[in-house]
Amino acid sequence: MANDTNSRIIRVGLLGCGNVGGALVPLIEQQADVIEARTGLRLEVVRVAVRNMSRDRGLTFGDDVLTRDAYAVVADPDIDIVVEVIGGIEPARELIMTALAAGKPVITGNKELLANVGAELFAAADTNGVDLLFEAAVAGGIPLIRPLRESLRGEPITRVVGILNGTTNFILTKMSEEGAEYGEALAEAQELGYAERDPTADVEGYDAGAKVAIIASIAFGARVVAGDVYHEGISGITAADIAVAKRLGYVVKLLGIAERDVASGEVAVRVHPAMVPLHHPLASVRESYNAVFVEGDAVGQLMFYGRGAGGAPTASAVLGDLIDAAVNLSKGAHGSLGSFAKAVIRPIDETSSEYLLSLEVADQPGVLHAVTGAFAANGVSIRAAEQEGIGPDARLVFITHLAREADVQATVRALRELDVVRHIGGFIRVIGS
Amino acid sequence: MANDTNSRIIRVGLLGCGNVGGALVPLIEQQADVIEARTGLRLEVVRVAVRNMSRDRGLTFGDDVLTRDAYAVVADPDIDIVVEVIGGIEPARELIMTALAAGKPVITGNKELLANVGAELFAAADTNGVDLLFEAAVAGGIPLIRPLRESLRGEPITRVVGILNGTTNFILTKMSEEGAEYGEALAEAQELGYAERDPTADVEGYDAGAKVAIIASIAFGARVVAGDVYHEGISGITAADIAVAKRLGYVVKLLGIAERDVASGEVAVRVHPAMVPLHHPLASVRESYNAVFVEGDAVGQLMFYGRGAGGAPTASAVLGDLIDAAVNLSKGAHGSLGSFAKAVIRPIDETSSEYLLSLEVADQPGVLHAVTGAFAANGVSIRAAEQEGIGPDARLVFITHLAREADVQATVRALRELDVVRHIGGFIRVIGS
Repeated sequence: MANDTNSRIIRVGLLGCGNVGGALVPLIEQQADVIEARTGLRLEVVRVAVRNMSRDRGLTFGDDVLTRDAYAVVADPDIDIVVEVIGGIEPARELIMTALAAGKPVITGNKELLANVGAELFAAADTNGVDLLFEAAVAGGIPLIRPLRESLRGEPITRVVGILNGTTNFILTKMSEEGAEYGEALAEAQELGYAERDPTADVEGYDAGAKVAIIASIAFGARVVAGDVYHEGISGITAADIAVAKRLGYVVKLLGIAERDVASGEVAVRVHPAMVPLHHPLASVRESYNAVFVEGDAVGQLMFYGRGAGGAPTASAVLGDLIDAAVNLSKGAHGSLGSFAKAVIRPIDETSSEYLLSLEVADQPGVLHAVTGAFAANGVSIRAAEQEGIGPDARLVFITHLAREADVQATVRALRELDVVRHIGGFIRVIGS
Repeated sequence: MANDTNSRIIRVGLLGCGNVGGALVPLIEQQADVIEARTGLRLEVVRVAVRNMSRDRGLTFGDDVLTRDAYAVVADPDIDIVVEVIGGIEPARELIMTALAAGKPVITGNKELLANVGAELFAAADTNGVDLLFEAAVAGGIPLIRPLRESLRGEPITRVVGILNGTTNFILTKMSEEGAEYGEALAEAQELGYAERDPTADVEGYDAGAKVAIIASIAFGARVVAGDVYHEGISGITAADIAVAKRLGYVVKLLGIAERDVASGEVAVRVHPAMVPLHHPLASVRESYNAVFVEGDAVGQLMFYGRGAGGAPTASAVLGDLIDAAVNLSKGAHGSLGSFAKAVIRPIDETSSEYLLSLEVADQPGVLHAVTGAFAANGVSIRAAEQEGIGPDARLVFITHLAREADVQATVRALRELDVVRHIGGFIRVIGS
């Protein structure tokens, strides 16, 4: 289709052309006609800032499109909208602030940036009356930020629980379905390119933690940052833990959880492995897929499922934002995040959950009595208990009723003091049925 | 919280106060402070048009709020935004057209109206430069229309497959999990209030058909109406069909399917029962839950899950739209659906699927040869075949490769002509793995 002379051209400056940027450029070209037919706007990527000019990206750019100077792209008066997919905090922060100050809408997929200095960026966008959109920063291609920002803006959301990291979900799926140990499953994920050589950010829950901070901010209209999030990763999960979970009707998932207490308004944000009942919609989210489960007083239970990473899905999320910003720009309008209240963070010690505890114990009279005494002394009530194996391999597995984290931690300390307890092999929170 | 004097009051006129309207009024009251804090706008329901003034709704209204005259509400210059939850085509259509012509944004949950005269309403909204929002019309509380309209506006969507009717999903869940026959499961659904006394609209797929027409319109930017949708209901599904499906690793679901052929641009829209592989995300959607599975070239696979009906979830969807319209109104802005192309509908005969056919046959030599001849003569290729039972109860079950509907229908006609085929007991399309 020829460029309709009545259409307005929207010139996009792209900062970064790696995995996401490299998928976005051809996607925009392929969809330009459809977008133009529906909106009367033609998107054109006119400048692309990259670190390495000579790298082969499999893309053909016109003269003067590629540059090493990201600041020049942001300052270029010909650029209408800036897309930032560099990642990291600086220079991304300064580039975005400069673009916003110049009245240019910004699309970013930068979770690290938003989870640390989001409030500053949101305020700058509102002050300058321009769009700052970031669907791609959380859960890749899954439309989640827009539904939270707009569809659920009036919903009394109480809890958001997400599988927010594809690498760890892949590893846990392998462990669960093939009985693999953590190390083997991680090695396979690394071989397939799902995990980095240094997997710390994924397996210790930092990546999911940044995402859960952004989710909590949007869902609760409160300023929550990555540093507010309690983290526990999956590197301590064993094949034995997963086997116990499976036998009891659960799967183990690394969950990002954001909760708000309606009475106090306190927000709790945490990332840790958890046992999810098999009939729960999150339990069937396999491999590297992500999903986000939202609970609200009026809407009940919702789940959003899809690809949480990857060039093409993430580029799809960027493109949705880009069209939105372009349409707003052409009408002189812009969205607003509204105001964010200061968040009062409830520390992990004061959160409540059900817990699974798996203990290797001596096979002698009075063991169960001694062990249950540690629970009772700390006010932790036991929902189910069972013994697995006999003799020197005897293992006691307990699932508690809803209990305060601090009380359960005190119970664990008390159990460690008992001579009859040889080892505490599993300590996993349970998502209630 | 006292009403902030800097806040603007947005006065809402509500048409209809049944299941959804009756949940919306208290939800707005409960959330008014939160919404005001985030947006600077205070929502107030100032007039409510009802058919029966004396019915007890468990709500307290001020003087002059309730009225029998819906036209007076729409015409009232004090009303900023109109919410229509009456249902049906007239007078809803005329009321909405009047409101739009007066420059008032409209929120509606009326699927019947949108699936029949949506194009007329969308055009009127665009002409008058006001919002017409309808998240509640499809899949109740699940944010679906907004993600399709906005997040996925640039995505090359190829297919949308949804469980769009909670009544039939409840019935099929009972049949599948408890081995109930259709009649028993329907009776239970009626007892629990999930099914109407006359269940036709649900069980024959008309309700899901209206929703799939709206989904196809938004997903593909094409004018698709309820009359374009091919329907097949679940009243012919037997416990035996479901048992066969289960044994082969499938569950039976009533699906609404909207597909677009990329090459020709043709759109196919249909509602029919289908076998869904157990590992597919739609397979685990149980009871009266809804879910919509979206496939796109860039984004891959997405799923949106939640409550597709019920007063509170649907009111939540209306409230999201209401806030959006209020914020737009306060800024003098409005969203746009963009332009809709004329849809070229591909008839059901020209669609392709995999099929399960279950035949009761005579137990005599040459049966399999005769039966497979009917498939071969019509160019339908068999992926799997098995015999169940022996002697007079022998049953042959076939699953085809991807085949054209017309060819499979011709095969069925040819099979009916064969003396050795006593009965064709199951004919169910299969969603490919």
